[in-house]
Amino acid sequence: MTPANPAVDTVDIAALLERGRDMSAPVLRAAVDRLAPPMDTVAAYHFGWIDAQGRPADGDGGKAVRPALALLSAEAAGAAPEVGIPGAVAVELVHNFSLLHDDLMDGDEQRRHRDTVWKVHGPAQAILVGDALFALANELLLEIGTVEAGRATRRLTTATRKLIDGQAQDISFEHRDRVTVEECLEMEGNKTGALLACAVSIGAVLGGADERTADTLEAYGYHLGLAFQAVDDLLGIWGDPDATGKQTWSDLRQRKKSLPVVAALAAGGPASEKLGELLAADAGSNDVDTFSEEEFATRAALIEEAGGREWTSQEARRQHAVAIEALHGVDMPEKVRAELTALADFVVVRKR
Amino acid sequence: MTPANPAVDTVDIAALLERGRDMSAPVLRAAVDRLAPPMDTVAAYHFGWIDAQGRPADGDGGKAVRPALALLSAEAAGAAPEVGIPGAVAVELVHNFSLLHDDLMDGDEQRRHRDTVWKVHGPAQAILVGDALFALANELLLEIGTVEAGRATRRLTTATRKLIDGQAQDISFEHRDRVTVEECLEMEGNKTGALLACAVSIGAVLGGADERTADTLEAYGYHLGLAFQAVDDLLGIWGDPDATGKQTWSDLRQRKKSLPVVAALAAGGPASEKLGELLAADAGSNDVDTFSEEEFATRAALIEEAGGREWTSQEARRQHAVAIEALHGVDMPEKVRAELTALADFVVVRKR
Repeated sequence: MTPANPAVDTVDIAALLERGRDMSAPVLRAAVDRLAPPMDTVAAYHFGWIDAQGRPADGDGGKAVRPALALLSAEAAGAAPEVGIPGAVAVELVHNFSLLHDDLMDGDEQRRHRDTVWKVHGPAQAILVGDALFALANELLLEIGTVEAGRATRRLTTATRKLIDGQAQDISFEHRDRVTVEECLEMEGNKTGALLACAVSIGAVLGGADERTADTLEAYGYHLGLAFQAVDDLLGIWGDPDATGKQTWSDLRQRKKSLPVVAALAAGGPASEKLGELLAADAGSNDVDTFSEEEFATRAALIEEAGGREWTSQEARRQHAVAIEALHGVDMPEKVRAELTALADFVVVRKR
Repeated sequence: MTPANPAVDTVDIAALLERGRDMSAPVLRAAVDRLAPPMDTVAAYHFGWIDAQGRPADGDGGKAVRPALALLSAEAAGAAPEVGIPGAVAVELVHNFSLLHDDLMDGDEQRRHRDTVWKVHGPAQAILVGDALFALANELLLEIGTVEAGRATRRLTTATRKLIDGQAQDISFEHRDRVTVEECLEMEGNKTGALLACAVSIGAVLGGADERTADTLEAYGYHLGLAFQAVDDLLGIWGDPDATGKQTWSDLRQRKKSLPVVAALAAGGPASEKLGELLAADAGSNDVDTFSEEEFATRAALIEEAGGREWTSQEARRQHAVAIEALHGVDMPEKVRAELTALADFVVVRKR
């Protein structure tokens, strides 16, 4: 990745992410504190602020790319980064609403190296606290009471609907033999692209940006989300468990029809066909749960041999390029443009 | 119930409810049609428009008190009833979001004489479609794009948060030996009062009513909700299964700490003490699921003997009176006042 803009090289990504986290964290905590017991405790556990016994913890709050983007979004519209804070928090609340519900629907027992909420506090609390975080997101924006806040909430609602559509598609894919690359990209655009897009427009909208500017910023965020997800799909198979916090071959264990798998199946050729036969047999059996490391390694090697790994890696770069291109459609301070560019670069090279 | 206003006697409740249903149904259907497959089908099943095999059905859509109230709400502010339609639909969507999630959390297998969504389509679809209906409610209001729509959405969001708080309280009560009457009323105010209150203010807000008017209308709706719930609690124990669509002794089977139970336990005296001993023993055992009709009848008789039935019945009348009182705090056409009064009367005398 050679950035065209030399200022990009000097951007301190860690500082940008930290600023997003630091500026939004107190507002996020205050919002979660509004929840009635025991939902406040369950949410605090989910966010990693306390452990399962209720003791203070200094949990891994995730990469915090979205809050960083929401503050830069405000700055892209010429507003102070602070203007983006309610947007950053609202997007984080919606993101975590979806994590709580998706982990339950997917039966995922671990997230960020810890037991998931439904595993610790039961399914009812996972449903309930997810619902509460979603409502809280809207509340936080709407209580600002301005026309801009109404527009921001509308964009967040649209993104949330897409997020839900994406999860519905993801679930339906699990029951199907074949999923096309296009279907997979549409699902990932809904599930990951839409909310990242909203993170990149919401601060600008709160800062008074017009709809066209917001739409163009969303285009950057949407393709950034697709690049992000392509990298996630690579990490879901070949990621280092110590870095990702997930099991080895995580997505293969879950029989996820992620991009590398779908692309490998679509490629044709001997490895592709052999992979298709194996996965079809796996789909009809319950033995996947007891597979050895070698059995997963065989499947991963076939995906790679059929070209699924390389295709996905190229796809991440393609989406990254489209995202950067969109950035040039918005008039914004060059410093902010360099920071958004650097964040996009970071997303495609990350290891976790 | 002797209404002070003679016009109340001439109100045709069935026609009012039918108007609410008829005017909101096409908009509700169009909103649900926006959902991506298979969520549209699952939602259509939930609303009773199709059966489990996907064949058209003419299901029982419920009493439709809320849509009727939302249209009257617009008229109370001097607007046309049509102005209240998006509010009516948004409130129905939120109400059904909560039914989908609550049925799953509570493990309820039947609603309105039919298998619940999680039972037919699985837990994941119940979660997902619930989420989608909640998002859709906000979308429908916010796409109106006016300042009034933003205010309406804010009220709906506040009500939804209370709804969720109420469900959290309801769940926590199941794990507790004793619940006070005050706690039970607070829970019911959140779970039933808040959304009914919103139904009565949302049309007025969309019609341009000021905040004070909206608040006063909400006071009527809130107490109407408490009256409604007190009647529901009576029907949950002594209701006719053919009318309610629930099993006999439905709330006792679920060990619900509803108003009659809580009031009976608080009353003191021999029947109250005997009831307390029985319920404490039930709580520690799994035999309740295999109880005979007689065993439930014994518990119901003790609740009645301890005064729980009579107290709840009086409570419904008390809340009804407070609701009617609040109506007089708003300047509105006398016809609308008579209709809102008649609806309140209907709520406390209904059998289903």
